[in-house]
Amino acid sequence: MSMFVESVMTDLLALQPDAQDLLFREARSANAFTDEPVTEEQVAAIYDLVKFAPTAMNTQPLRVVLVRSDDARQKLLKHMSGSNRDKTESAPMVAILAADTDFHETLPRTFPHFPGAKDLFADDAAREQAARFNATLQIGYFIVGVRAAGLAAGPMTGFDSVGVDADLLPPHLKSIVVVNIGHPAENAWFDRLPRLDHDEAVITL
Amino acid sequence: MSMFVESVMTDLLALQPDAQDLLFREARSANAFTDEPVTEEQVAAIYDLVKFAPTAMNTQPLRVVLVRSDDARQKLLKHMSGSNRDKTESAPMVAILAADTDFHETLPRTFPHFPGAKDLFADDAAREQAARFNATLQIGYFIVGVRAAGLAAGPMTGFDSVGVDADLLPPHLKSIVVVNIGHPAENAWFDRLPRLDHDEAVITL
Repeated sequence: MSMFVESVMTDLLALQPDAQDLLFREARSANAFTDEPVTEEQVAAIYDLVKFAPTAMNTQPLRVVLVRSDDARQKLLKHMSGSNRDKTESAPMVAILAADTDFHETLPRTFPHFPGAKDLFADDAAREQAARFNATLQIGYFIVGVRAAGLAAGPMTGFDSVGVDADLLPPHLKSIVVVNIGHPAENAWFDRLPRLDHDEAVITL
Repeated sequence: MSMFVESVMTDLLALQPDAQDLLFREARSANAFTDEPVTEEQVAAIYDLVKFAPTAMNTQPLRVVLVRSDDARQKLLKHMSGSNRDKTESAPMVAILAADTDFHETLPRTFPHFPGAKDLFADDAAREQAARFNATLQIGYFIVGVRAAGLAAGPMTGFDSVGVDADLLPPHLKSIVVVNIGHPAENAWFDRLPRLDHDEAVITL
């Protein structure tokens, strides 16, 4: 794409170019971090921002499980695959992003205009599927939120989720992604991988 | 939460407050739209922004299927549930957000440093699951992108996805969300529904 076309397209957005860069164009998944800590207050600010993004029937099943104690970190490391173990060992903050399969318990408060909402999710398998789907949407928002905090995220699916659930989480939480969070080290990323062209991803009927 | 705490937490973010509002705090899922059109160029600008957000192994399975012709719109409306039908009938732009189960075909180009990537997805069921998971992450990014374009999104899961797939999509695409896109009408939204408190969603181990 020519520079001309790219600048025209940037102008079609209401979001300012520096914010576009912060969240998408210059943001990268980090593989290594500096020692600078990430605080629970920063995670709270991220949650306080991204909680407003939409989920189906306002179900909000995402749970952000911060792995702060040495004991929890060691338990988690056992279940990380290959090179993800080293990344997770050295990251200043690690979160297990999980789906709460008991999300329906809060619907009388979070979807109050439809009193039958909770009963729609009586079936365990369908409820877990809804929990995983909506939590995954929220993981997308959360990754954007980490970047909005000026931090780098290193999201990973390469881990033994059954082992993580058994060793670290209560039975109603199902791990989906483990994300390292911090300030990127100098050698934090590989080269940017190619993205699909517009005409490969956008189809008109 | 007190005003004081809220302003402190906003200051913990690198993203400017007006951008926080545009993408999250003031953005809402719209139920009605003005007649102002949404162009394919605007959708291209959204895609050109959100394509950079991460997916597992750079799989990028999301396909944005724009429902532009009258014939396609009529076919889609038949499969929308209840009040979603009226919203979709009147929206200036409607997109079916779908997962491409043939995403692995592009991995030799999009994940070139690992020649075995495509073969990891030989199993049809596992590949469809990976397609749906990563496309759902990308749907989260896309909704943020619609808002970055100064537009309102109305994402919906209330439709017959099997019918949509059969009537509108090629066999390798699986519909996940239908999203209406436009400028919000005066009566575009209901009251903001409650979000979970920090201590309900963020857990420390």
